[in-house]
Amino acid sequence: MRSDVTPSPTYDLTEMMRGLIARLYPICRSITGDGLRQTLRIIGEQIPLEINEVPTGTQVFDWTVPQEWNLRRATLTAPDGSAIADTDVHNLHVLNYSIPMQKKMSLHELKPHLYSMPDKPDWIPYRTSYYAPNWGFCLPHRVVEQLRDGEYAVTIDTTLTDGSLTYGELFIPGQTEDEVLFSAHACHPSLANDNLSGIAVAVAAAKILSTQTNRYSYRFLFAPGTIGSICWLAINQSQVDRIKHGLVLSCLGDGGSITYKRSRQSDAIIDRTVAHVLREAGTPHTINPFVPYGYDERQFCSPGFNLPVGVLMRTPNGKYPEYHTSADNLDLIKPESLADSLQTVMKITRAIECNDRYQNTQPHCEPQLGRRGLYSNTGGNATPPGYEMALLWILNYSDGENDLLEISRKSGIALETITIAAQMLLDKLLLRKL
Amino acid sequence: MRSDVTPSPTYDLTEMMRGLIARLYPICRSITGDGLRQTLRIIGEQIPLEINEVPTGTQVFDWTVPQEWNLRRATLTAPDGSAIADTDVHNLHVLNYSIPMQKKMSLHELKPHLYSMPDKPDWIPYRTSYYAPNWGFCLPHRVVEQLRDGEYAVTIDTTLTDGSLTYGELFIPGQTEDEVLFSAHACHPSLANDNLSGIAVAVAAAKILSTQTNRYSYRFLFAPGTIGSICWLAINQSQVDRIKHGLVLSCLGDGGSITYKRSRQSDAIIDRTVAHVLREAGTPHTINPFVPYGYDERQFCSPGFNLPVGVLMRTPNGKYPEYHTSADNLDLIKPESLADSLQTVMKITRAIECNDRYQNTQPHCEPQLGRRGLYSNTGGNATPPGYEMALLWILNYSDGENDLLEISRKSGIALETITIAAQMLLDKLLLRKL
Amino acid sequence: MRSDVTPSPTYDLTEMMRGLIARLYPICRSITGDGLRQTLRIIGEQIPLEINEVPTGTQVFDWTVPQEWNLRRATLTAPDGSAIADTDVHNLHVLNYSIPMQKKMSLHELKPHLYSMPDKPDWIPYRTSYYAPNWGFCLPHRVVEQLRDGEYAVTIDTTLTDGSLTYGELFIPGQTEDEVLFSAHACHPSLANDNLSGIAVAVAAAKILSTQTNRYSYRFLFAPGTIGSICWLAINQSQVDRIKHGLVLSCLGDGGSITYKRSRQSDAIIDRTVAHVLREAGTPHTINPFVPYGYDERQFCSPGFNLPVGVLMRTPNGKYPEYHTSADNLDLIKPESLADSLQTVMKITRAIECNDRYQNTQPHCEPQLGRRGLYSNTGGNATPPGYEMALLWILNYSDGENDLLEISRKSGIALETITIAAQMLLDKLLLRKL
Repeated sequence: MRSDVTPSPTYDLTEMMRGLIARLYPICRSITGDGLRQTLRIIGEQIPLEINEVPTGTQVFDWTVPQEWNLRRATLTAPDGSAIADTDVHNLHVLNYSIPMQKKMSLHELKPHLYSMPDKPDWIPYRTSYYAPNWGFCLPHRVVEQLRDGEYAVTIDTTLTDGSLTYGELFIPGQTEDEVLFSAHACHPSLANDNLSGIAVAVAAAKILSTQTNRYSYRFLFAPGTIGSICWLAINQSQVDRIKHGLVLSCLGDGGSITYKRSRQSDAIIDRTVAHVLREAGTPHTINPFVPYGYDERQFCSPGFNLPVGVLMRTPNGKYPEYHTSADNLDLIKPESLADSLQTVMKITRAIECNDRYQNTQPHCEPQLGRRGLYSNTGGNATPPGYEMALLWILNYSDGENDLLEISRKSGIALETITIAAQMLLDKLLLRKL
Repeated sequence: MRSDVTPSPTYDLTEMMRGLIARLYPICRSITGDGLRQTLRIIGEQIPLEINEVPTGTQVFDWTVPQEWNLRRATLTAPDGSAIADTDVHNLHVLNYSIPMQKKMSLHELKPHLYSMPDKPDWIPYRTSYYAPNWGFCLPHRVVEQLRDGEYAVTIDTTLTDGSLTYGELFIPGQTEDEVLFSAHACHPSLANDNLSGIAVAVAAAKILSTQTNRYSYRFLFAPGTIGSICWLAINQSQVDRIKHGLVLSCLGDGGSITYKRSRQSDAIIDRTVAHVLREAGTPHTINPFVPYGYDERQFCSPGFNLPVGVLMRTPNGKYPEYHTSADNLDLIKPESLADSLQTVMKITRAIECNDRYQNTQPHCEPQLGRRGLYSNTGGNATPPGYEMALLWILNYSDGENDLLEISRKSGIALETITIAAQMLLDKLLLRKL
Repeated sequence: MRSDVTPSPTYDLTEMMRGLIARLYPICRSITGDGLRQTLRIIGEQIPLEINEVPTGTQVFDWTVPQEWNLRRATLTAPDGSAIADTDVHNLHVLNYSIPMQKKMSLHELKPHLYSMPDKPDWIPYRTSYYAPNWGFCLPHRVVEQLRDGEYAVTIDTTLTDGSLTYGELFIPGQTEDEVLFSAHACHPSLANDNLSGIAVAVAAAKILSTQTNRYSYRFLFAPGTIGSICWLAINQSQVDRIKHGLVLSCLGDGGSITYKRSRQSDAIIDRTVAHVLREAGTPHTINPFVPYGYDERQFCSPGFNLPVGVLMRTPNGKYPEYHTSADNLDLIKPESLADSLQTVMKITRAIECNDRYQNTQPHCEPQLGRRGLYSNTGGNATPPGYEMALLWILNYSDGENDLLEISRKSGIALETITIAAQMLLDKLLLRKL
């Protein structure tokens, strides 16, 4: 157990996470471009990030890295000269990846390029058009409804040029080459919960894991959604079998309780681990089956890879009203949620670190625990204390099939107790690591 | 999808089924003989039936084809000259397969040869003695109770002679040699639901399937119960492995809801298909486990064959009071039940026809659906429409393990939508047929 | 079926069990010594027991057979000369395996050697110290609380010398070398339910099994807990694979209902058999999962052996208040519980004896049961009688996979009916034993 290296008060890390989210929030990110680069640079101030640039036109499986998109400013001006949309006010106002456009046009001509949500009339929707050349403005529906006929001035000052797609990676070497992957998408513009919260929790977890000795190597990936993880998988295809466990981190700052979405394998060790950690925590939580829609688990869990990667969230994508709207702002982020999300991630890593399968070296009858000082010597009590029961459970089920997690589940004894007891048995040579 | 070839209004077929049942009802059938032959001839007026005659004495597995039985008339006359039983009035009056008998006897001598049901005193029971030479009369219990001492005249004008057992078969060739078997027993005398209804639904389904191009070949078997299917299995033993799916059709005209009895395999494709079709229909239904008692599934599902053959019924055998009595008459048959039974059979065949396992040809990460015109290009919405979700589900789970039925079950998306989406992916070469 | 050899009235055996328990109760047993020897000698008066002595110092797996312990008398005298504890009054008064001690001492010095239960102040606890040299007295807490300062006289007249550990065995040869093991621990001093009841039921079962022809060989083991079964397993290691089924018998005399604790395999034939017998009995009962704490199943089910051995109890160890106290006395034993426990054991042995897997010799279609006299010849009834259904179930599922127990479970037909029907099919050569 590594309780010694657990972040003592996580207060500083919670403050760090809040500050990081606040600093990243105003940046206009996309799946390529300087907003994404700036984001990774700021993350790199917290943890040592390796930055990778994948040139436009690079073939990555079925996809091609697109031209790089950059926005200077996009404005939409009403016939009376008033500003309808201005990315200097809110960068969701522009359809993300809009082609450059400078034109005056009638409302009729403009209308197909306006995006709004009738059921959420006060919020700006988040819309993108990465792979089909298009332009547009996203507006509160209330604003769209009040537009009057006349000539509108469209000014979209963007560039789409050969460049590159940027992603950042932090690799924390462990005692083994076996890897745990944490992935957070870094492409969303001014949206706080989705996914600056995921980035912030990943950064905090990386900070903690960097300061301790880990059995696993940890890899943190900050990449644009879909095309970013596809790039990473294409470039690292030969090494993905090192990934033994993984989590996509997203929507971790809202006030909801934890939701875990299983990996496609559905009963991988990461799935059992998260379920166990959440069960032991005893707080409300939800465990959902894998579905092939969501975040970058879609790529990690594509059938050709089928990696053991689940998703840790609070309220899932699409399940909170502010999702993909201007209302997913800093007000949605609860510091206590960030702290709880980080704590959950750390519990999961601790469980992964200590979980193992062992072989009982004395499998014929019980070994005599008393003479090794492992067991109370005065018999006759109805039940031995918890750790003595843990010794018996571990010895009986350490047959090469069951890991400590499973023994904890079977016995109902806390994984921490099981881990301490397993270490005692290892020290006495009654267990052998498999 | 074959919605184009679905029977448009099934009204005509329902009328055909009603008419066929009414015409067949008065015939005195048995497991051999002219009643059976006449029945097959009438079916043959609707669909082109191949008639097979299996000679008396033919060894079929553990059984021997019995002598052929024919009834001219059987009467039982009371001491006062009144007619107690007369097969010209109801052919259930004679113990089916009665040996010839012409004798006067006391009530005492007669009694062991009378069959009645104390709990259903107004109905004539259906009883048979195929393999033990015997004779008898089946009577309403009310009649039996009123019989007085005196001399009774028994006249059973039957013949038991070397002849043959008759069965009829229709084979509708499909694009493959893989077969779907539909089997309906054709031996019951004047009993309407059991099983003229099964015969009628089979005939209607055969009519529809004959008019369309099918992937599977379809075989319709009309044979006497037990010995008939045993004959067929003995004669066709070398080819039964072509049967990929099968249904015994019986009791399909009563007012009850659909009941499906699983095959012995219990989770064969036919079992999953029927369960899926009934679930999607959303109407009340029952799914029962296999039991080795019932209809000809007893033979198809004997352990040496263990064919994937289930039973489609409405109210099962033995579960409606009129079962195997003179009350299983034309009044029990509901046209809307016949229509619904036929519709269910056709839904099952459509599901079987379109179900398949595919291999995703681009299993590493998602293929780019947008550039193939398969996917909306403006991202950011919470959920894509149903068919876009279907594309993702099919791609993710087309790993050679899951068929479309299973993907429909997993995703909760209608099999029809899944089938349309799979066809689109096939057209774009993103799937390969296995 | 062996209903002919079932103990007719078990009255005599119930009386025998009560008498045996009453006679063994006063003896001061331990894991070695003359009390244990005397116990085995008395058991040997009922059934022919082979006595084994394992010398002190013998290495048995991870354990060493300890020195032999014998008690003449232990007394604790108060400053005023009154007797506080005296093993002539109750042999639980001494910490079992106490080293010899003759000393006067203050209450302060004495206190760490006194064992009592504050929550059960009137009862003497049962405590042992087999493997750590120690001495002590076990007292009602009420007594301990009233002890006053002053000089106490401790006299523990025990011997700990090289000698041996004793266990007794009865082997009843059957038609095969396959064995059923019954094991009852014989080391507890004056405790009636735990485990003189287990010993008594084992003796009664052995008496019955000795008088009949059995397919299995039966082995009854009466050994001290833990070290005794470890000795037996070490000595018989090469032959333990003959044990096909086994039960530890303990706590079988109290008024509670039957509890079965599954073997570590959890779904071994013995587990299915006991579950089936208890289900068919229709009386309240509990089935618990395996846990690696309890009686000698801890050794039989250690991962190196993993024998199919469960535990038959009424109220389990630690679950009745009198457990391991002086209140586990003769008053706790109910004759009707002993009788019911014996009856349950005999039902289990009958089920084990008759259970088997068969192969249907005519697996293609049903064999013709009627011409073999196995089946009613007048067809048309809704349901054949139970045994005819049993014939069909057995024939259909005798594919080498399912044993009679499983067929009974699947069909819901009583195992006895299934067994009778299987015998009829065997006689007609329609089944072949596997």
